[in-house]
Amino acid sequence: MTRPLDALFAPRSVAVVGASATRGTWGYQLATGALAGRRYRRVHLVNPRGGELDGTPFVPSLESLDEPADLVVVAVPPAAFCSIVDDALATGTRAVVGVTAGLPGPRVVEVAARVRAAGAVLLGPNCMGVFDAAANLRLLWGDLPSGDIALFTQSGNLALELGAIAGRGGLGLSRFASLGDAADVTAVELLAACVTHDATRSVALYLESLGDGRAFLAAASAVIDAGKPVALLAAGRSAVGARAARSHTGALASDRAVLASACRDVGIILVDTPTALVEATRVAALRRRPLSFGPGNRRRIGIVADGGGHGVIAADLAVGAGLDVVPFSAGLSARLAEGLPATAATTNPVDLAGAGEQDLFNYARIVAAVAASGEVDAVLLSGYFGAYGVDEPALADTEGQVADAIAAVEVPLFVHSMAPDSTTSLRLVERGVPVWRAVEHALAAIPTALRDPVRGAPVPSTGSPGGPDVRNALKRAGVRFARAQVVTTLAEARQAAVEVGYPVVLKVAGLAHKSDVGGVALDLGDEAALTRAWEAMAARLAAPAYTVEEMVATRDGVEMIVGARRDPSFGPVVLVGMGGVLAELLADTAVGLAPIDRVAALRLIESLRGSAVLDGLRGRVRVDTGALADVVAAASRVATDRPEVAELDLNPVLVTAEGAIALDLHVAEAA
Amino acid sequence: MTRPLDALFAPRSVAVVGASATRGTWGYQLATGALAGRRYRRVHLVNPRGGELDGTPFVPSLESLDEPADLVVVAVPPAAFCSIVDDALATGTRAVVGVTAGLPGPRVVEVAARVRAAGAVLLGPNCMGVFDAAANLRLLWGDLPSGDIALFTQSGNLALELGAIAGRGGLGLSRFASLGDAADVTAVELLAACVTHDATRSVALYLESLGDGRAFLAAASAVIDAGKPVALLAAGRSAVGARAARSHTGALASDRAVLASACRDVGIILVDTPTALVEATRVAALRRRPLSFGPGNRRRIGIVADGGGHGVIAADLAVGAGLDVVPFSAGLSARLAEGLPATAATTNPVDLAGAGEQDLFNYARIVAAVAASGEVDAVLLSGYFGAYGVDEPALADTEGQVADAIAAVEVPLFVHSMAPDSTTSLRLVERGVPVWRAVEHALAAIPTALRDPVRGAPVPSTGSPGGPDVRNALKRAGVRFARAQVVTTLAEARQAAVEVGYPVVLKVAGLAHKSDVGGVALDLGDEAALTRAWEAMAARLAAPAYTVEEMVATRDGVEMIVGARRDPSFGPVVLVGMGGVLAELLADTAVGLAPIDRVAALRLIESLRGSAVLDGLRGRVRVDTGALADVVAAASRVATDRPEVAELDLNPVLVTAEGAIALDLHVAEAA
Repeated sequence: MTRPLDALFAPRSVAVVGASATRGTWGYQLATGALAGRRYRRVHLVNPRGGELDGTPFVPSLESLDEPADLVVVAVPPAAFCSIVDDALATGTRAVVGVTAGLPGPRVVEVAARVRAAGAVLLGPNCMGVFDAAANLRLLWGDLPSGDIALFTQSGNLALELGAIAGRGGLGLSRFASLGDAADVTAVELLAACVTHDATRSVALYLESLGDGRAFLAAASAVIDAGKPVALLAAGRSAVGARAARSHTGALASDRAVLASACRDVGIILVDTPTALVEATRVAALRRRPLSFGPGNRRRIGIVADGGGHGVIAADLAVGAGLDVVPFSAGLSARLAEGLPATAATTNPVDLAGAGEQDLFNYARIVAAVAASGEVDAVLLSGYFGAYGVDEPALADTEGQVADAIAAVEVPLFVHSMAPDSTTSLRLVERGVPVWRAVEHALAAIPTALRDPVRGAPVPSTGSPGGPDVRNALKRAGVRFARAQVVTTLAEARQAAVEVGYPVVLKVAGLAHKSDVGGVALDLGDEAALTRAWEAMAARLAAPAYTVEEMVATRDGVEMIVGARRDPSFGPVVLVGMGGVLAELLADTAVGLAPIDRVAALRLIESLRGSAVLDGLRGRVRVDTGALADVVAAASRVATDRPEVAELDLNPVLVTAEGAIALDLHVAEAA
Repeated sequence: MTRPLDALFAPRSVAVVGASATRGTWGYQLATGALAGRRYRRVHLVNPRGGELDGTPFVPSLESLDEPADLVVVAVPPAAFCSIVDDALATGTRAVVGVTAGLPGPRVVEVAARVRAAGAVLLGPNCMGVFDAAANLRLLWGDLPSGDIALFTQSGNLALELGAIAGRGGLGLSRFASLGDAADVTAVELLAACVTHDATRSVALYLESLGDGRAFLAAASAVIDAGKPVALLAAGRSAVGARAARSHTGALASDRAVLASACRDVGIILVDTPTALVEATRVAALRRRPLSFGPGNRRRIGIVADGGGHGVIAADLAVGAGLDVVPFSAGLSARLAEGLPATAATTNPVDLAGAGEQDLFNYARIVAAVAASGEVDAVLLSGYFGAYGVDEPALADTEGQVADAIAAVEVPLFVHSMAPDSTTSLRLVERGVPVWRAVEHALAAIPTALRDPVRGAPVPSTGSPGGPDVRNALKRAGVRFARAQVVTTLAEARQAAVEVGYPVVLKVAGLAHKSDVGGVALDLGDEAALTRAWEAMAARLAAPAYTVEEMVATRDGVEMIVGARRDPSFGPVVLVGMGGVLAELLADTAVGLAPIDRVAALRLIESLRGSAVLDGLRGRVRVDTGALADVVAAASRVATDRPEVAELDLNPVLVTAEGAIALDLHVAEAA
């Protein structure tokens, strides 16, 4: 997957097949775009009906050229597409860009295979083109601003909006590719090529399907390790059109939750809107200077503003983004108060209360003091700074000096400025301080920028075929189950109850949501109770099989759910959550890519909102969280090893001070 | 509170006291602003040191003027402020704008009282000025764009940012006032005046404290009833610096939750960012035409886009905003499919798959079909529409005709366009269709725009002084408690247990979080068990009093929490939530302004994520939700009637099929 993509982004020559002199057509847009680069490469326009554009005559076919076109972009009706591609390959073309839409799926697969076999690459078909700023390559509808963001998208019109957003924000693209049907060149391949593409300092992706999620994460991880932030807008993972789940785990470990977890681990900035996608790339500025990142879980942010409004709004948004707006120590507050007016707020957020306006160096002094305090992991400066020199040109020089002083702090510094494109703001960016126009976009990017990605590329998902006996596999992996026997008659049930030991539980076998249908009878103390329960259940459900199980007292334990499912992009994923009907409704769950070990499982468990219950909240018994982590790790291994398991629920898993015991298992096999 | 504010926003004459010819000072900014309006009114510049600006000489004092200045804006050092105000009042000034900062609080109160006594109004002090577009009044730092939004803020620098955001978005302000210390003129008064201010079509507010929350809601409600949307950015209500809570209710019914609930009822659009505040005002366009709003809870939205990306992103955001992206019926999908390519998506969201580009009238046809289907309450069109005429001028005429056809639909229509300031987009706005540049801002405003506000202004909070016996008041209001007796000795406890009837519960009296300290012993079946529990508890806690209570079996019931607290802005508020340690951690609660009746209480209960448990989820017993609603209503009345109650917890309230019973009560009295 590391083919050179130079023919796609920096071809020696270009041919546009389907060129047109009629404004508003694809053939016209591509031809004018190609001609704009003719100072840098030969450009051929192909149209069998003849004609010319801007002094360049149309030639009838690719064969009639005096050289092979290195890149051929094809915008012809679907019926003509494949033969054009074959012509191109025959003449030695190394890259084909398929704009043509409406090709039948099997034809797309066939033509992609022929392109690959010829050692060439195919972008699309059904794509919106390709762009490379440094190579002056512009083969697309419309135009895009130049800059240092690599943009790859699965939607054409959205790419135009993203380009417009970048342009309005003073940003631009190093390269762009529209994926279309992605029959050959994929997002993963494009992403991987960014590692060594010097003109790219960050990557923005719009994807509706990730393809091989593990390969995607590995590629993103390599780009991030190369110092280039990766932001992802992944649409279509909301509840709309969600998968039909066949288990609790299936319902709780949503596609969105799995993606969010994977992105968090690898350090991809996951966003929800086109604007946030573009704006997230600004964190790349941080790489322009060495910074001191503290150890561990870095979330403490100090906020500085002149005027209360900006500070308070930033603080509210920071809390919403999961950052800690830590209270400052009395000592730090006292140091900040020196030289500030009595009306200033010297707690977090800091309000200079006009002192910034009176002497711009107060900004530098306060930012430096907060940054050097050891009490925060990062500083956010929000509001007017950057705009003083715009509103009052006499202040521009001083503001620039203050910017230099601010940029010298050693912790990561983020700025929201009312004038993000001012000389002062651009000076901050040059010195490694990202500057945003909207404070919410700063705060959307900061948490990921502060977090260390999990080291090591994600493990590819493998699965060795295994037998159907998932319960035994889980037992071998160390999961304890309540004693249970499968029975089909009342006589067998009575015998099983004696062996298991009264009191027992009677359950209908093989159903999820058993209690919904009255398929569970608890705490049957003797044979009479068992018989009554059997007769009632059999009359109602007429099920082929039941189980008689040990009755486990739940009073001193915490009910949890542990599960796994197979994600279409990421393969096996594991879930742990608070159990019980109510907790499930409230969906307090955490997910991770399987397999995971005990340490990673403990991290998932600790991320639950309700995890304090496990630690003995309010006079409760502290339960054995390590035993629960072992169950989670075991479930993740079993799900990984057995591709035939589509969904798996251990629900509930009762966790007590003595250990963890699974009270029920439900497995859905892949179709 | 309905004083005329014409002297503030449209004065007959203006004097600037503290005028200056030095650039970059407040005196200069105010004087140049005042002079910009001299075609419309007389302008006097006052500075005892003399000088002139732009041909207008400075006069030494207000007394030396040949007429009273109708409005006086004061930007002098704090020591001189009060005497200047007195001078102004003595000469007949009707409005004073105090820019001066740093006045001691008591002086501010005194001077405000003198202004009111003189029948005049005071804005500020410590404010950033006032602006009125129609009156050509500009007395502030910087400048603001003209338009139809009334903006009132508690932060000066933020107002400049809000003005810049509006200007960049093609919006502007009808009037603006900076509240400063709000010693006389308040946000409530300014808001109320918007009802009859014809140039104002929407209101944007930035507030850090609401003052009298009920009066604020009543004023906002009147503005909304007058057809003018109200948007609110209320900062400082996050967890940072939150109140120290003394009960579960205090912790769960956060300031933010109370505000969100109140805004939802009244129809105020509550936002988190400056950009969202400005953008929310665009819904005002809906009032330009009569629309058919369906009955009840309107959340069903149909989404139309050309190209998959925009539709899928909008759908994800719509789900996040609490809207229903309903699946379309087979019949509607079939109607949409006529004339669209086979690759089009005719479910919700609709993807025209290029058909919009090929024939712009397809946009009108599809939007009209979705709008008329009866399957949605509103339509969102997202993406390229509005930009065709910009990118290809030959298409502008056709696009305008399509806009007219689109705007004729009878359900509310919202548009996200890549060119929100194009001729086509402005035509949509003129015809009552709001158009946003960013789809997230459309979706932030839509839910409130579709919801009917609760009719009738909020009831003012009153409180008649009552006795301390809250338990008896709750009993009289119909709340059932478990039988209980207060005891101080083991002998009393034994006697009480006989009267209450074994099994009993022994609790330490008068503590919240009893179980945290081992202050609860459950299910004591006989005197021996009671004695053991007493001895253990007494040895550990040495408390002065205990209670012996009826043991209520919780197995077939659902534990809930009901509470009330006194909000600093809104007065008494009531809370209902899922009970139990875990549910509290997950904070599944709903709050409302007290008092509420049974019907409103049921609505709160139904809004809980876990409410399905009450209705008998998964084979559980359906419990008596009405009885729970009665407890909620009773708690809301008792809290309203007794201002001495700061916080009140009924926790847990056990709800069974037979009714609701409160198992514990904790009351915190106001200090």
